[in-house]
Amino acid sequence: MPARQVLLLSSSKVHGYEYLEYAKDDINNLFKKNNVSTILFVPYALKDYDGYLRQVEEVFAKWGYKVNGIHKGNPVEAAEKAEAFFVGGGNTFQLLKELYDNKVLQVIRKRVLNDGIPYLGSSAGTNVATKSIHTTNDMPIVYPPSFEAIALVPFNINPHYQDPDPDSTHKGETREERILQFQEVSGAGPVLGLREGCTLLIEGDKITLKGLHKSRLFIPGKEPQEFDVGADLSFLLNV
Amino acid sequence: MPARQVLLLSSSKVHGYEYLEYAKDDINNLFKKNNVSTILFVPYALKDYDGYLRQVEEVFAKWGYKVNGIHKGNPVEAAEKAEAFFVGGGNTFQLLKELYDNKVLQVIRKRVLNDGIPYLGSSAGTNVATKSIHTTNDMPIVYPPSFEAIALVPFNINPHYQDPDPDSTHKGETREERILQFQEVSGAGPVLGLREGCTLLIEGDKITLKGLHKSRLFIPGKEPQEFDVGADLSFLLNV
Repeated sequence: MPARQVLLLSSSKVHGYEYLEYAKDDINNLFKKNNVSTILFVPYALKDYDGYLRQVEEVFAKWGYKVNGIHKGNPVEAAEKAEAFFVGGGNTFQLLKELYDNKVLQVIRKRVLNDGIPYLGSSAGTNVATKSIHTTNDMPIVYPPSFEAIALVPFNINPHYQDPDPDSTHKGETREERILQFQEVSGAGPVLGLREGCTLLIEGDKITLKGLHKSRLFIPGKEPQEFDVGADLSFLLNV
Repeated sequence: MPARQVLLLSSSKVHGYEYLEYAKDDINNLFKKNNVSTILFVPYALKDYDGYLRQVEEVFAKWGYKVNGIHKGNPVEAAEKAEAFFVGGGNTFQLLKELYDNKVLQVIRKRVLNDGIPYLGSSAGTNVATKSIHTTNDMPIVYPPSFEAIALVPFNINPHYQDPDPDSTHKGETREERILQFQEVSGAGPVLGLREGCTLLIEGDKITLKGLHKSRLFIPGKEPQEFDVGADLSFLLNV
């Protein structure tokens, strides 16, 4: 069984960087070591698929990759033949609904877990790569048939994780409060809060924090814990 | 047919005020003119129903009202007999799921629209009073059987509405961007952004903005528009 090759970004945009630029080395490592020349892009999280595809093509062309849009032909056939997946950000509910409606969710899962096809996800594309979308920040603009997701990892991620602003007078819940509310639900497991600029690399059964900043891990019944870049989080496969 | 009597608060807490204090006069007007002495409280949006009930009882006792918790007996019977409803804030997904699971959603709708029973909602309790919960800010911690809600009004509200912070370096979508994404979805209608401290009073077919601040209205295909306290928004019943 080939090793799972997954890179999950908190966000594609980070303050002070161009689109995907901060993660360029990790993205190239992921694709280069798997001899990827063409990436299958999944634009379902935004409304304008063609516009989104052009934006992504432009960046990856500079780095030497060809990009195909999954919406350009038969999505299941495209997923069955893909050399690599990139699932971009936008609205997580819309993305997950389209993955179900186009019947590609299980195909992507099988290709990544069984065939070792590399998966790059960003923001909403990171949410859907985890166990479920229960910890997205997005507005539920459409109703997907389930909140269960591709489950390339058996835990949840909160992308764009934000620390509370000590000067805020706003009374809406902080991100941490929302995650702790989720963990009051029966069966809820660990949630990794990835700040913008944080990424998670999963190679087989090895999970490593990458990117620019430390990340915050919430395990039900425990105090939240900070982990530095480079930390080994492989234990999350068995929590 | 009795007139609908509905007061929807953006939030129960507002900076500088005690719980519900900023809306005390409007809440008392709603209940007094309908000769309410006992309020049926719906605590489903939080996990600790009894603790939540005690908090609400304490405030309403000072104002001269008795409060019953819908969870203390048969919820359908309690809703059928209620003199008034207060649906409190917390997690909108959890609240809506419990309304469905306890089979009280249609009962509350019927009692408010047909029998003229007053409805007070705050935050999540405001979201579920509208057409659907598609414009909640909450994390989808549980999966409700639908996003369609009590529909006391035929449009959507975004409570805790926040203007973009011009100094922010965060790359997650602004609230306005999220609402505009929702309005790209086929069939999406108006969304009223209620800032914390804003409330909406619906008396029959008359809708009036109340509270402390102006509110922001999003109508698909139009520029967002600001409305002052006191504005008549009755036209939203026919958009």
